[in-house]
This record gives sequence, C-alpha cells and structure tokens, in this order.
Amino acid sequence: MSNAWWLAPAREVNRESRDQALARQQQLTKPAGSLGQLEAVAVRLAGLQGREQPTVEDVWIAIFAGDHGVVAEGVSAYPQAVTGQMLHNFIMGGAAISVLARQLSAQLDVVDLGTVAPLDLPGVLHLNLGAGTANFAQTEAMTQDQLERALQAGRDSVLRASAKGCQLFIGGEMGIGNTTAASAVACSLLECPASLLVGPGTGLDAQGISHKVRVIEQALQLHAAHAQDPLGSLRALGGFEVAALVGAYLACAQQGIAALVDGFICTVAALVAVRINSSCREWLFFGHRGAEPGHRHVLEALHAEPLLELGLRLGEGSGAALAVPLLRMACELHNGMATFAEAAVADRPA
Amino acid sequence: MSNAWWLAPAREVNRESRDQALARQQQLTKPAGSLGQLEAVAVRLAGLQGREQPTVEDVWIAIFAGDHGVVAEGVSAYPQAVTGQMLHNFIMGGAAISVLARQLSAQLDVVDLGTVAPLDLPGVLHLNLGAGTANFAQTEAMTQDQLERALQAGRDSVLRASAKGCQLFIGGEMGIGNTTAASAVACSLLECPASLLVGPGTGLDAQGISHKVRVIEQALQLHAAHAQDPLGSLRALGGFEVAALVGAYLACAQQGIAALVDGFICTVAALVAVRINSSCREWLFFGHRGAEPGHRHVLEALHAEPLLELGLRLGEGSGAALAVPLLRMACELHNGMATFAEAAVADRPA
Repeated sequence: MSNAWWLAPAREVNRESRDQALARQQQLTKPAGSLGQLEAVAVRLAGLQGREQPTVEDVWIAIFAGDHGVVAEGVSAYPQAVTGQMLHNFIMGGAAISVLARQLSAQLDVVDLGTVAPLDLPGVLHLNLGAGTANFAQTEAMTQDQLERALQAGRDSVLRASAKGCQLFIGGEMGIGNTTAASAVACSLLECPASLLVGPGTGLDAQGISHKVRVIEQALQLHAAHAQDPLGSLRALGGFEVAALVGAYLACAQQGIAALVDGFICTVAALVAVRINSSCREWLFFGHRGAEPGHRHVLEALHAEPLLELGLRLGEGSGAALAVPLLRMACELHNGMATFAEAAVADRPA
Repeated sequence: MSNAWWLAPAREVNRESRDQALARQQQLTKPAGSLGQLEAVAVRLAGLQGREQPTVEDVWIAIFAGDHGVVAEGVSAYPQAVTGQMLHNFIMGGAAISVLARQLSAQLDVVDLGTVAPLDLPGVLHLNLGAGTANFAQTEAMTQDQLERALQAGRDSVLRASAKGCQLFIGGEMGIGNTTAASAVACSLLECPASLLVGPGTGLDAQGISHKVRVIEQALQLHAAHAQDPLGSLRALGGFEVAALVGAYLACAQQGIAALVDGFICTVAALVAVRINSSCREWLFFGHRGAEPGHRHVLEALHAEPLLELGLRLGEGSGAALAVPLLRMACELHNGMATFAEAAVADRPA
C-alpha cells in the first residue's frame, strides 16, 4: 500500500461559515430550534461548503454494481442474473433510482465493477475487476489488487462529480447477495454475532435468514484474523461495490463534497470508511433508517441521525435520493426566510 | 344546527382504482414492499383519486390564524401581537411556509379568522369572527355562531382549492396560545390528564409548562360537561383556526381532496373531525411526528403513521409541506418505474 490515498485527511470544515450560519438561524422568523433537524443540516452544510448560505442543487448519484461469490451458498431470494438486468434497467430509466434521479435533476453515474457474465451496456462504465467476488465462505472475497481498484473506482466517480461542480454525492449499490457481504463486514468490525445484524435482505423467509446467519458465522471464523481491521474485513468479506462506496465516501471528504449515505449496505461502507480514516465522518449525512434490522445497529455505531424512516429496503441509493428534497428545503428555508428585523416580527423576550 | 353540513358522508374511495394500483406495485422492478410506506401512499392516493396512476402536482396550502383569550393566563412564550405580525410575514414571503410554498409551487391561502387588533392586509382574507376567542379558563372560547362560521371558513378554503383543481390540501395554523387550546381540546376528547399532552409549545420552560398544565386542568373541570363531545369541546376550549381546520378536513373528504395533516394542532383538529364524522379518516395523510409530546398520543389515537419525524415544532403547515416531495415521489415511482416484463428483469421465484 505504497500509495494509500485513503489515509489523506478530509478537507477542513470552515468554522467561520458554520458559526455565521448558526447565528443566522437564530434570527429567522420562527421559534429557535423549531425546524428541528433541518436547522442542523443547513448549519453543517454551511461549514462544509464554506458559505453562510449553502445550496445542494447539483446532485451526483453513482450506482456501483458487482456480483458476489457467496451467492453460491444460497443466501439470496433472487437469481444472480438480476444484477446485470438491473444495470440495463438503470440506464433505460425504469428503475426506482432512475425515476428519482430524473425528479431531482441529478446526474446518474452507473459503474459495473464486475458481474458473473461480462456485460457491454452503453452508458455503463464496465471495469471488469472479476466475474464477481470469490465465495467468502471458502476464501477471501477479493485480492488486494481488486480491493484497491474498487476503492479507486469510487474515488474516480467522486472526481467526475467534482469536475461537474456537484454539491452532493449519493452512492447507491446493486448486487445480488450484497446484504450478506455487508452484514459479514459489519459483524467483523463491530464484533457482534451475525444474528444481531442479519435480516431478510430483499425477501428471505425465516429459514433463509437462519441459513444466512450460519454462512456468515462460519465465514467470520474463517476470516477471524481480520476482526476489527477495516481494510482486511472489506477485502475478505466485502464486495466490489461495497469497496467502491468506501473509496467514494473517503474521496468525498478529501474533495470537499458532502455525501448522503443510503441504506444498510451503504452505511456499512460508511462504517468501514470512518474506521479507515475517521476524518471523513463530518462529511457524511444519512438519508434514512431502513427496514433491514442491522441498519439500526450500524447507524448507532456511527452516531448517525438519518432524516427518513419509511421502511425502505431497496438500495440503489433510493433512500438517500428521497431525502434530497429535505436537504434542499433546509437550505431554502435557511437562505430564504426573513429575519425578525427584516419582517418586523417581535422575537420572544430574551 | 339545522344545516349540519359536517355530518354529510365523505366521498367513497374507488376500490377498483386502488386494487389496480396495488396490482401495479407488485409488477414494478423492485422487491415487493421494498419502497415501504411510499407504496401504501401511492395505492391510497390511487383509490382516493379514482385513477391507477395518481398525481399530487397541484397543492393548496391554507393558513388559518386567530388569537386566543387564554393567553391572558400567561401560557405562551411570545407576545400576542406576533399573530398579526406573522400574517404580514406570510404574505410578504419571509415565513417558513412562504418559502416552502414557493419551492412546491403551491398556492397559499391566508385566512385571518380574528386577531386581537383588527388588521387590513392585502392578500389576507379577514373574517373578523371576534378579537380572538374568549378566555376558556373563565368561559366558553366561542359562541355557537362563531364556531359554525369558523368551520365554514375551513370549508370555503377547500371549495376554493377544489375550484382550482388542487389534488392535495394542507392546512396550517398561526395563533399565539394555540398549543394550549389544542391540548385542552385533545384532553377533553381523549379524557387524559393535561400533563400527558402538554409541552413547551414554541418555547416554554419547565415552570411555564407546569403553569400551562394547571390552567388546562382547571378549564377541563369548568367545561367537563363537554368531555368526549367533539363539537362541544371545540367550542368551549378550541380556537377559531382550530375549528377552521376541522371544517377543512371534513370538507376535503366530502369534496374528494386528500388532506395532508401538519403538526400537533392540526392533528388535534383532525381528531375532532374524525370524532364528528369518521368517514373523513380515509382522506387524511399525516406529514410528520413533531417535537410536542402530545403529538405522539393524538397520532396514536388516530392510528396515524406520519411520513417524517424531524423534531419540528413550528406549525404554519410547514411539516406537511416538507412531506409533499415524498408524496410526489411516491407517485412518480408508482407511475414511472418499469415493470419486470417491460424491463426484462427476472422476478423472484413465486
């Protein structure tokens, strides 16, 4: 790891802009604190963007896809071919995230890191890191070279977003079997039993969940040497798209772009990123608390307060995309409301 | 009550459209149920609008304002003149709801039912029902005539919204002292102690809250004859703007317009409306769970599942307005996503 770019510090928060924004919030024509979490969002964004009045008009949504060798253990409700079929659906505009990206006027960046059958889809960046990861129930999911290329793929998407002047980065993921990989990585980092984190994913029944727990528990024993080691756990148990998300969150913090984290898999990637380089934590917002039971635990480990809780369990970045209007309206309220003085409204007695 | 329009039944839900929408949801390229509450929102809206593919593009936001005689008991952190000052702020565009209405391209309808000092503001409908309500710590807050005129004012706003073809009605409120009135009405209907529902409103401290509880407890004894009587409780303990909201929700259901309920005060009005005429319940959506502790209890009494929980305590309809993008995106996803067949994506085995 001669060129460990992921260890470089995050951009510094501009404390002067943040303090100016905090002072502005106290002057707006509303009871202090009455806009709840939205006030904190506007103030944080001001500090990150280095301007008293922040905006999040230009949004970049990167979807990272990859297949998972562990699917051979029978841990998913869907056939593995769906990963590639959904890549096609993303660019044809029929997937949930495609619809949301249109609604938000966001740019969609679709990156295929490696699927079981190689694809050649116009509008998709195919990186061909491998025909999916290796089966982590038997061996390490990725080689060191694959891991570093996947991290760099996430960073490259952030550099493209930065070149376009985007103010908010959303990472999404697609990969049949990736709740299994993400659960395994989280268990390895949090040193908790698989039964605490594992859930139905996209639709397992109780028997399927029990089997998934056993597969993960055995893999955690096999890869016990990597417990609490973020890069080692990611390589041994993760997935290409999970590693790309890790690289993306770290690069966002280094490039000075706020990131809005999606559901369970993305939140596990955020946990890995923070464990690798804790300076990135200030650049992460959390879109929602999803239905997958492990999501709550990983959010707590990150001291994260998500904006939404709608029982989502889709992935693709959809829960983060759904939270974008809240970030935008937080900024509009912060920037557009009158102050008590401007509106000649009496504030409460001090 | 010779012309008790509020007892007329709500428009019937179109079960065929609802069932078509439910069938459509099962065919979209996502795991069944993975969009959580948003799926139910789209299906409900389909039934209410009588079309498989609903939309909520045209939104009407009515703000009802009024003053409260009970403020003489020292129950609010803000001076009473703020009610009128904020009416001015609404139409000048500096209030939170003004900013949100612009963002949503919603029409803002500002109705002043009666403030302590009569106002004459261009763009505000002044109804002059009285110089605020009477102090319910001493007498009934409203006369029967005032109550019926306030209910009708809410209905009139809905009729204006209907004439403009609006698909969603949001009611907001402004009135210094109105968390006290709303808490009293809710206690009277739910027969629960004031200490369970009363909170800081826009900013009382612990001593202020204790005093507010005592004022309400004494008033509940004075008006005990109206316990569990929705119209009687509303007249004795409510406010002009609360009654207007009650009338609006009932009229929405009768006119066939979905209503998105805001915070604590609006939810108490929704409770009164449902107790008067339970057929309106199907037409009510709930925007958020706010910071006022009583809100949770009243939502539970209505079996309501709000979309947001952001610690809001502003009123003005702001929490409902913040939830509008979720309703819109629920419709866009429902209408715009590809089906498994259209996208040639494999569904899970049955």
